[in-house]
Amino acid sequence: MSAPLPTDLEIANAATLRPLSDVAADLGVGPEHLEPYGRDVAKIDLAVLAEPALPHQAKYVVVTAVTPTPLGEGKTTTSVGLAQALQRLDKRAVVALRQPSMGPTFGIKGGAAGGGFSQVVPMERLNLHLTGDFHAVTSAHNLLAAMMDNHLHHGNALGIDVRNITWRRVLDVNDRALRNIVIGLGARQDGLARETGFDITAASEVMVLLTLATSLRDLRARLGRIVIGYTTEGKGVTAEDLHAAGAMTAMLQDAIKPNLLQTLEGGPAIIHCGPFGNIATGTSSVTADLIAMRGSDYAITEAGFGADMGAERFFDVKCRVSGLKPDVAVIVATVRALKTHSGRYAVKAGKPLPAGLLEERPKDVEAGLPNLRKHIEIVRRFGVQPVVAINAFPDDHESEHAVIRRYCNSLGVRSAVTRHVAEGGAGALELAQVVVEAAHEPTSFEFLYPLDLPLEQKIEAVATQIYGADGIDVSPAAARALKDYERLGYGGLPVVIAKTHLSISSDPSLRGAPRGWRMPVREVRAAVGAGYVYAICGDMRTMPGLPTSPNAERIDITDDGRVTGLS
Amino acid sequence: MSAPLPTDLEIANAATLRPLSDVAADLGVGPEHLEPYGRDVAKIDLAVLAEPALPHQAKYVVVTAVTPTPLGEGKTTTSVGLAQALQRLDKRAVVALRQPSMGPTFGIKGGAAGGGFSQVVPMERLNLHLTGDFHAVTSAHNLLAAMMDNHLHHGNALGIDVRNITWRRVLDVNDRALRNIVIGLGARQDGLARETGFDITAASEVMVLLTLATSLRDLRARLGRIVIGYTTEGKGVTAEDLHAAGAMTAMLQDAIKPNLLQTLEGGPAIIHCGPFGNIATGTSSVTADLIAMRGSDYAITEAGFGADMGAERFFDVKCRVSGLKPDVAVIVATVRALKTHSGRYAVKAGKPLPAGLLEERPKDVEAGLPNLRKHIEIVRRFGVQPVVAINAFPDDHESEHAVIRRYCNSLGVRSAVTRHVAEGGAGALELAQVVVEAAHEPTSFEFLYPLDLPLEQKIEAVATQIYGADGIDVSPAAARALKDYERLGYGGLPVVIAKTHLSISSDPSLRGAPRGWRMPVREVRAAVGAGYVYAICGDMRTMPGLPTSPNAERIDITDDGRVTGLS
Repeated sequence: MSAPLPTDLEIANAATLRPLSDVAADLGVGPEHLEPYGRDVAKIDLAVLAEPALPHQAKYVVVTAVTPTPLGEGKTTTSVGLAQALQRLDKRAVVALRQPSMGPTFGIKGGAAGGGFSQVVPMERLNLHLTGDFHAVTSAHNLLAAMMDNHLHHGNALGIDVRNITWRRVLDVNDRALRNIVIGLGARQDGLARETGFDITAASEVMVLLTLATSLRDLRARLGRIVIGYTTEGKGVTAEDLHAAGAMTAMLQDAIKPNLLQTLEGGPAIIHCGPFGNIATGTSSVTADLIAMRGSDYAITEAGFGADMGAERFFDVKCRVSGLKPDVAVIVATVRALKTHSGRYAVKAGKPLPAGLLEERPKDVEAGLPNLRKHIEIVRRFGVQPVVAINAFPDDHESEHAVIRRYCNSLGVRSAVTRHVAEGGAGALELAQVVVEAAHEPTSFEFLYPLDLPLEQKIEAVATQIYGADGIDVSPAAARALKDYERLGYGGLPVVIAKTHLSISSDPSLRGAPRGWRMPVREVRAAVGAGYVYAICGDMRTMPGLPTSPNAERIDITDDGRVTGLS
Repeated sequence: MSAPLPTDLEIANAATLRPLSDVAADLGVGPEHLEPYGRDVAKIDLAVLAEPALPHQAKYVVVTAVTPTPLGEGKTTTSVGLAQALQRLDKRAVVALRQPSMGPTFGIKGGAAGGGFSQVVPMERLNLHLTGDFHAVTSAHNLLAAMMDNHLHHGNALGIDVRNITWRRVLDVNDRALRNIVIGLGARQDGLARETGFDITAASEVMVLLTLATSLRDLRARLGRIVIGYTTEGKGVTAEDLHAAGAMTAMLQDAIKPNLLQTLEGGPAIIHCGPFGNIATGTSSVTADLIAMRGSDYAITEAGFGADMGAERFFDVKCRVSGLKPDVAVIVATVRALKTHSGRYAVKAGKPLPAGLLEERPKDVEAGLPNLRKHIEIVRRFGVQPVVAINAFPDDHESEHAVIRRYCNSLGVRSAVTRHVAEGGAGALELAQVVVEAAHEPTSFEFLYPLDLPLEQKIEAVATQIYGADGIDVSPAAARALKDYERLGYGGLPVVIAKTHLSISSDPSLRGAPRGWRMPVREVRAAVGAGYVYAICGDMRTMPGLPTSPNAERIDITDDGRVTGLS
């Protein structure tokens, strides 16, 4: 066992930060495109994208993972550590990450700025409001809701079917009591009574739409296309119909600009947006990646959950919008995740780990390897080079790492053990080296499906070719809705499968690489503004709750104004 | 009739802004205390207050008004115009204003950055998110609500009486449908069902608490004292009891820092907080005023609605916290407001003005003068020098202004006609001159009541000595609550009367200076964190609605990224 690390907040507070203008200069962003937002944080003006790019061919690296335990396997820390290590190899590297949601920060999960010696700083700013982009999303989303309910109140000239409204409200807080509510009670002037609810801001269509917008103009157009519900004749009612899209764009004009922070080792870190990884894409923004690619040799971007979830959407949805072609996919694997894929352990968030998980049991790691193989196959299916990053924990055993490395060798996949949490970039040098090697291999990136395939076939392609299902079972209601979507002109959109992230299958209890199962498609929904149709294949929670003793209870501020208890 | 003015947005966009560091230097704020937040906006670190002040004796000027029409009489424009004019007289002048709420910006009222050539810029930033302080208030307020409902869900160890919860939720949007809602529906894990609602963020106790906090430490203490409801035994349950106050403070650590912008003529404008003027104090923050007083010859601050409302609270609540003694109260009067106080016209927001209001009718102005006299008496009651600012509109007639000026002369009160909207600071030079004269008169500022008076007598003192009521009629429920508050230790707090702003009385239909009426006290509530008890004396709307065609419908963004339609 190593000596215990200081807390993330202690490490972050002890860091000496570089002047942000120097960090921006490393990224090819001049002061004329940098808008400071408080100390050590700035927004990058999208006008920088119109400037001639540096003469270079950047490599595009996406960080994904094996099927994670509920604790997560360290994709964010690996992304940061890899960027730090590449800089130590004299590469210009930049990491593009999602902004953490305040709900989980005050709930169970805590902050999400990386960890240990692979963090993005200032971590306090990152974990709280940052530059207010989430708040702008909340405001724009809820303005549309208010205008919609106001439209109903003032006579419903558009003929919206009150029983077929899909637009809810959002707040960036874990608040279970807002999941299902009745609004519009009281007197006549207090609106129309109806059932609805709040989701967390990360689940807002506005959030994912912001990640996919390539310009302010594109943002305006996407906002206008948002469908809030349907008329009694089954016609989609849009934000444009409600004359809300212009005001929403005005509210988001700063939020579309990515935020620049830095890693603990002073490299550029672009933080932008944070859409849910289950019902949405779970990626940071297209604009962030475009800026990262313009100004670096290695642009490292993160995708949510395992390769079945985040990476598939990254390839099929985000890369389709951005036009960028990924070179390498780093698959983060941990000993504990692979051990759970043996089916012999149960890991729960907020509970102590099962004791045996920390013992030297290479056989259990081996039993979990089919999960890793499946994620490697997914990455290869898209014509991208896989690299396996074994994120080492203090309690890991050499023999367990060796099992994973041997297996990767047998599949012809590069791998490296990385100790970036304990050691920073110095701990990820081997990973950085194999990523550089992999990035110079030939690639042949391709999407899983063409957009002109019918929606149902696209869903089936993901289920069978990515998840390994034998087929899909579409409920009658979902089948009707898919037919309606084709009729309404949404048929050419890509698809997102809203399923559990705890299994490659749609059943969260199945470990490893499940076979011999079919995927039930219970319901489908259209995120027309964001630009995809999503299929609900499991219980999707879009508003988390707080635990008995939330993190918030342990957060405080000292008399001299330092935050304590953030993790 | 003069030529029509360009729109506020056109004027604001045409302005050339000074570098904000120069503006800050004028205010004695060095770059080490200035945190830029996007272009042309910065936060001022409270550490500046610990620096030795400049050797000077600043004059403290509060801008109030006669009883306004629903359209408002131009306190903000007058405050800005006065500051601009004082600078033309070579005085160091700074204006401290409230931040506009986004709800009304997208609703009926439009923005609130001043108007014409007396505006604060950048007006777009000011009218939208500014630096996110309102969002921080929303987040902190709703975190407390979520932790409270989560406490109920997990067993209610504190024994909170579910039927006696006073803490609601807030959003910065006009959304009538959220006024009365039922939450916690759905399954067992979706919380406890109960009735509640949302107020607009400006009505949050956290907002007014933030205006009154003198330091981060004081903010922490006030947040801890917030009472969210009562136990079945009638004991107050606080944010401290729920262990929420530390996390709330962490969320507000930047929001407590006032924001620096500039007037159209390049003088410093401090914008901070925006509590409701009806149930709350309606003033900008104590910290803003302390910074303004430290670095200027004339600190001009605004109080909400008429002198009966905003100025009384400014004197009795805000000045008690800040320890600052006001020298001058500028009472903004308009021809149209005084005409309506004749009782011969009805002005409604969103409707055209009654035709006769624009005709030359000095007799009607004269008939409204008792209202002006009453506001002058209120200011004098506090030992402060009154100055009447006649805010001239293009349709005013000389004879109507003359009526007001003669009347002021007869009362020994200085007055001036001001044309700052059309002409900027040049139009307010006469006003600036009489303010300078008045500021050098002897004053003897005193509070209306001592804090150790029983709560009911404090309410009565405001009703009889300020509003001119014959007495108060306290409902049995309110009387019980007042007794409870004395028992619970809230008896030493000052009071705020939540009543209509459209009359000096509590009856919105009474014009002029009503006599022979009694004030009914229907209900009382305790804002223990903010530090006052408020009496509900009329229908108080704490969540506005949108009109049939909200302003939001006319706001858009051009292809080159300029906002249009903000007013």
